[in-house]
Amino acid sequence: MNSDDRPHHEASLARVRIVLSHPTEPGNIGAAVRALATMGLRRLVLVDPKRFPDPQATAMAAGAARYLGEVEVRANLDQALAGATLSIALTARRRDLSPPLIDLRDAADLAIAEARAGGEVALLFGTEVSGLSNEEVLRCQRAARIGTSEEFSSLNLAAAVQVVAYALRHAAVGRESYVNERTPPATHEELEGLFAHLEASLQRSGFLDAGNPRRVMQRLRRLFARAQLESQEVNVLRGMLSAWDEALRGRTKR
Amino acid sequence: MNSDDRPHHEASLARVRIVLSHPTEPGNIGAAVRALATMGLRRLVLVDPKRFPDPQATAMAAGAARYLGEVEVRANLDQALAGATLSIALTARRRDLSPPLIDLRDAADLAIAEARAGGEVALLFGTEVSGLSNEEVLRCQRAARIGTSEEFSSLNLAAAVQVVAYALRHAAVGRESYVNERTPPATHEELEGLFAHLEASLQRSGFLDAGNPRRVMQRLRRLFARAQLESQEVNVLRGMLSAWDEALRGRTKR
Repeated sequence: MNSDDRPHHEASLARVRIVLSHPTEPGNIGAAVRALATMGLRRLVLVDPKRFPDPQATAMAAGAARYLGEVEVRANLDQALAGATLSIALTARRRDLSPPLIDLRDAADLAIAEARAGGEVALLFGTEVSGLSNEEVLRCQRAARIGTSEEFSSLNLAAAVQVVAYALRHAAVGRESYVNERTPPATHEELEGLFAHLEASLQRSGFLDAGNPRRVMQRLRRLFARAQLESQEVNVLRGMLSAWDEALRGRTKR
Repeated sequence: MNSDDRPHHEASLARVRIVLSHPTEPGNIGAAVRALATMGLRRLVLVDPKRFPDPQATAMAAGAARYLGEVEVRANLDQALAGATLSIALTARRRDLSPPLIDLRDAADLAIAEARAGGEVALLFGTEVSGLSNEEVLRCQRAARIGTSEEFSSLNLAAAVQVVAYALRHAAVGRESYVNERTPPATHEELEGLFAHLEASLQRSGFLDAGNPRRVMQRLRRLFARAQLESQEVNVLRGMLSAWDEALRGRTKR
């Protein structure tokens, strides 16, 4: 985790709200609450929802139900977008007259850049069956599309919110790196010690032709290079080699 | 749309399978079918599902129910992973001993690179409540984590599949560009014609101080530069200016 920039990205994500216009299925509201929570987004704004609060919303929020109380309900779209300095409409359809249509990742980059600069950003989703009206889209500065298969492009509302929340988080956070959790990698001299041991053991076992062991050892070097051995793994492998060495000595004696 | 590389990315996505180990909720299977369909993925493999087929799966697949017949059911994980040359386990938890843990986007890049090189890729998800066992994770070459909020990280299985399917599609397709749908942008000479017309009209209206119109005109140039005017919009704006010009002439006569 890039813990250094956590406060930075949290502050950015706090300036991004998700707005659902006239949601009809309370289950989607609950799933959206959960989707936002997983990605560290704080503000879900509903424009005139058909049913909310609702037990179905609570059920779909599951462990995120504690955030249901923070959901904001507004009577109309202008109230939901109040204070926003950049509004982006999510739309699956291309429209005759619309704000510039951009890819979701470009929209996410734009949203986070605006939030970082101190702006307030809204991402607007339409109602389940018919999506956003042209009038709603034209109240926004951009339109964004989640790239989908041409053959089947119908994302469920909650699934679309999850994808957008993911794209926003990752525009804010960047790729996470887990490199620090690796146990210590093997050093050059540990690897060379392993290869020398391996070659000697394989010669003793008769597997390697003592005359020309090079080709096999080259293959083994290639394999272990790809594996990026850890220090501990070198110890385990050398222990295995020593056990074979020992067993072989026992048999030779007998 | 980058229609040029469509066959290319479809062939890559066809080599990536999503594997659900012991799913217990048929609704999640249906939602996963829909999630895959939206992102152009073709193969969903279930390891010993609790209930499938099931009306709940059909309901959650919605318009994608026609793909339910293609879902593959296998008795155990090895059968589900048969033929795979790269397997990636999705895991929320960090584990003591695990394949290298990478960010989802790195995993998606790796998966698509392997598929493009002719390999077969599997992304493996655990059962709803407890996720993957350590044994299941260790049957894979990589472990991947969907970056989530530290505060609340519990993604629903279907939501996780949707996010992963999205990440895979976008590793294969890249950012989509809708630039070609723009109507023709205004040319330099159209813009200069507009600015000259605007300045003359504003001087006639008395808004511009004829002595020093420069500051206001600079602001307006800045505004219209950001707006990236289209050719048709210049015509509309000049029509508006002409109407004001005309109305002003009428009033002056009166």
